[in-house]
Amino acid sequence: MSADMGTIAVVGAGAFGTALATVVARHGRQVLLVARDGERAAAMERERENAGYLPGVALPQTLRPTADPATIETADAVLLAVPSQAQRATARTLAGHLKAQAPLVVCAKGFEKETGRLLTGVVAEEAPDHPVAVLSGPGFAADIAAGLPTAMTLAAGTLAEAEALSAALSGHHFRLYAGADPIGVQVGGALKNVLAIACGIVEGARLGESARAALIARGLAEITRLAVTDGARAETLAGLSGLGDLVLTATSRQSRNLRFGIALGQGAAPADLTGPGAALAEGAFTAAAAARLARERGIAMPITDAVSAIIAGRLTVAEALEALMQRPLTNEGS
Amino acid sequence: MSADMGTIAVVGAGAFGTALATVVARHGRQVLLVARDGERAAAMERERENAGYLPGVALPQTLRPTADPATIETADAVLLAVPSQAQRATARTLAGHLKAQAPLVVCAKGFEKETGRLLTGVVAEEAPDHPVAVLSGPGFAADIAAGLPTAMTLAAGTLAEAEALSAALSGHHFRLYAGADPIGVQVGGALKNVLAIACGIVEGARLGESARAALIARGLAEITRLAVTDGARAETLAGLSGLGDLVLTATSRQSRNLRFGIALGQGAAPADLTGPGAALAEGAFTAAAAARLARERGIAMPITDAVSAIIAGRLTVAEALEALMQRPLTNEGS
Repeated sequence: MSADMGTIAVVGAGAFGTALATVVARHGRQVLLVARDGERAAAMERERENAGYLPGVALPQTLRPTADPATIETADAVLLAVPSQAQRATARTLAGHLKAQAPLVVCAKGFEKETGRLLTGVVAEEAPDHPVAVLSGPGFAADIAAGLPTAMTLAAGTLAEAEALSAALSGHHFRLYAGADPIGVQVGGALKNVLAIACGIVEGARLGESARAALIARGLAEITRLAVTDGARAETLAGLSGLGDLVLTATSRQSRNLRFGIALGQGAAPADLTGPGAALAEGAFTAAAAARLARERGIAMPITDAVSAIIAGRLTVAEALEALMQRPLTNEGS
Repeated sequence: MSADMGTIAVVGAGAFGTALATVVARHGRQVLLVARDGERAAAMERERENAGYLPGVALPQTLRPTADPATIETADAVLLAVPSQAQRATARTLAGHLKAQAPLVVCAKGFEKETGRLLTGVVAEEAPDHPVAVLSGPGFAADIAAGLPTAMTLAAGTLAEAEALSAALSGHHFRLYAGADPIGVQVGGALKNVLAIACGIVEGARLGESARAALIARGLAEITRLAVTDGARAETLAGLSGLGDLVLTATSRQSRNLRFGIALGQGAAPADLTGPGAALAEGAFTAAAAARLARERGIAMPITDAVSAIIAGRLTVAEALEALMQRPLTNEGS
């Protein structure tokens, strides 16, 4: 990894990518913001604003919008702020243009659907000569861009790599805590969406704030059990990228997964929410995948099972709740 | 501990005690609800309702209100649902009336202020021949009484004791998970109030949902560090009585500590909120005690320190935030 990180590239000019590019540029770095199409890049250059995705936020002078992926050859680190399912293709496109040793940082959550693999693994496959890290945690684009205090996790294969990236990207109000457990960060970041759907169901069905709080605690315990079998450290799940992001997703109306769960809890038919044209709730896919993994590995994940069964139409919300309540009482560790 | 738990006494006829007594009576147990004064007990008997504290909830026929502490001699377990600072005096009053081996269950949060001791220790001092347990976690009285799904922790000196009590008190929608870490349960239950104040400050000062989520994750990490030095298990803090209760307290307007923090964040002078006649926020006291302990033990608790300094008037909210943001970046584990 290059010790000097004078230039950072952010690939993907959606709300999150633009917010990241803006905050890092404010810290005094030279930043390239790579948009998919030339028209958007030109508009950002002209208006010094990403009016479509992050209106009202001035782009710092040290931020240069572009649509040319070849420009990243000057970048000392490249942040991939494109959607999960676009990470592989983006990494493949960029691979030939990367500066030697420049790290790639996955800034998306979830698994690759086709392979079920973690995104750092996917990106490493496409750019095998580069270190791959992941940035995750509780950070809404609007909060980051507004300069509100934000703390997220940056995890790499080694703590030293993570610390170098954290130092390069962090600023006064945007704080990245270094970690060396990219697996835990990614599994937590994906599975918290399942629990956000569960919290939405509880909210939509008016089961009370106590039930939601218990669900978050019991839910964190079950996703930790699964993550540990993937090689994650339990502490990572209790950190910013697990618990922190879970709290944000499960309590903010800005979350699509929460809203999806609320609709289910209010009695909407799952088919109407997941069918063609419906806005995608990432957790709906993850729930089925995680429930299957849990079965294969003999891990109890009753909340994930319930969410998965409701989405698949195998149980109504009332039936799923009844099944949860009829489980034998255990001690907290199991 | 008596194997047979046919009769349960709940001492303290506030909202929480009445909710507990009601839900346990609904499970088919004989329940004594012991009020402090005869007038309230008589009114509850006459109206089959605790109109002052839990209006609209019918008391089951198996629940018998009384003001006579001597009646607890028939009880196979006694739940102490009186305020934290009244636990010692109540245990002392009851000690002579207890059935042999009957366990006492602390149903209050916080430390004894005069001694700084955990409440299970205080009660054990007053009733040395009886097992002492603690019931804690995310459960609003109104949710419990309404029969909404609730999950809390019941921790005793041994898992077997906790499981016996959990089986005696739990029902279909009121689930008590057994645990053997009463220290972790109590330290978490007390310290989450400090974080609730911090979350309130973040909310009152409009620092954003991302900041609040990060605060919860980093806050849980720091209270876990302190709890472990008291002999708690880290997992307990990530469970129902720690994380679960923290989420409830930090996100619900029903919480006095949260409202206290919001007022501070909006610029209220601490002296106006803590002076004579002001409603007590338990966490205000706990913050100072925990900050002192952390200093003595050399544990970093920056959020607790900040809350304590703001309440004491040593720092403004803006100064405290600035101090937090200027801390060197660390890795997530520290």
